[in-house]
Amino acid sequence: MLTANSETIIAELDEAECLRLITPGGIGRIAYAGLSGLTVFPVSYRLVDGAIVFRIAQHSSTGEDLRAGIARADCTVAFEIDDFDDAAREGWSVLVQGSAHCVGSGSEQAAVLAAGVKPWPDSANDHVISVTPTRITGRQIEQG
Amino acid sequence: MLTANSETIIAELDEAECLRLITPGGIGRIAYAGLSGLTVFPVSYRLVDGAIVFRIAQHSSTGEDLRAGIARADCTVAFEIDDFDDAAREGWSVLVQGSAHCVGSGSEQAAVLAAGVKPWPDSANDHVISVTPTRITGRQIEQG
Repeated sequence: MLTANSETIIAELDEAECLRLITPGGIGRIAYAGLSGLTVFPVSYRLVDGAIVFRIAQHSSTGEDLRAGIARADCTVAFEIDDFDDAAREGWSVLVQGSAHCVGSGSEQAAVLAAGVKPWPDSANDHVISVTPTRITGRQIEQG
Repeated sequence: MLTANSETIIAELDEAECLRLITPGGIGRIAYAGLSGLTVFPVSYRLVDGAIVFRIAQHSSTGEDLRAGIARADCTVAFEIDDFDDAAREGWSVLVQGSAHCVGSGSEQAAVLAAGVKPWPDSANDHVISVTPTRITGRQIEQG
């Protein structure tokens, strides 16, 4: 734990605490090397068997770009989740770094769909992307 | 405007609309190639003379990493801002891609401080980072 000054406390979060914070799912941000440079956009995710899973529209520009980015950058992506109270200047953030792949049909996709991973935006035709974490870090900021 | 299905509307936002959305400032996420790979973390930002400006603690691990990342990756970073209602599945996101540099002392830093850019976490010794946009894109998701 590092004290920035007498009022603000910054705590590094261990992996177990990070996992506890991101387990409920919700909105997170996928970051990757896109065709137009470093790209970040929000998706609705769930944690399924320790992996970050989300769905993207198959024919959207972001969907195509992410698939190309995953293929080009050796599957290395980052996924960020946070929850902040801007007024109170308190909150937490978790960074998941890992490898991404497109989940094909079969048992893996069935498990993902069974976990209730919803496409967002809604789309009948979509891709399921799974990010397997290689490193999970986080920090919490509180006012003393 | 692209209609994903009968209920969800995805609108690409033009640069002027993106700027309007991010002008109030608040919390955004800086993404860059860090020492430990692709890194994303939230900061409190303001828009000053068309640039994204934020402050980071000088001796924090993230601060050192960001400065190293800025130096190594030819200053190319991404900055993401969004506002979503998870329950309603509606909201917007803006992606600013651009070049980052550390704002030194002098008139540039004085202008930034005058704009009320607060360090977050609070820190007496901090660096001011400015991201000059080269590309601003965004999208809005609404339920029809």
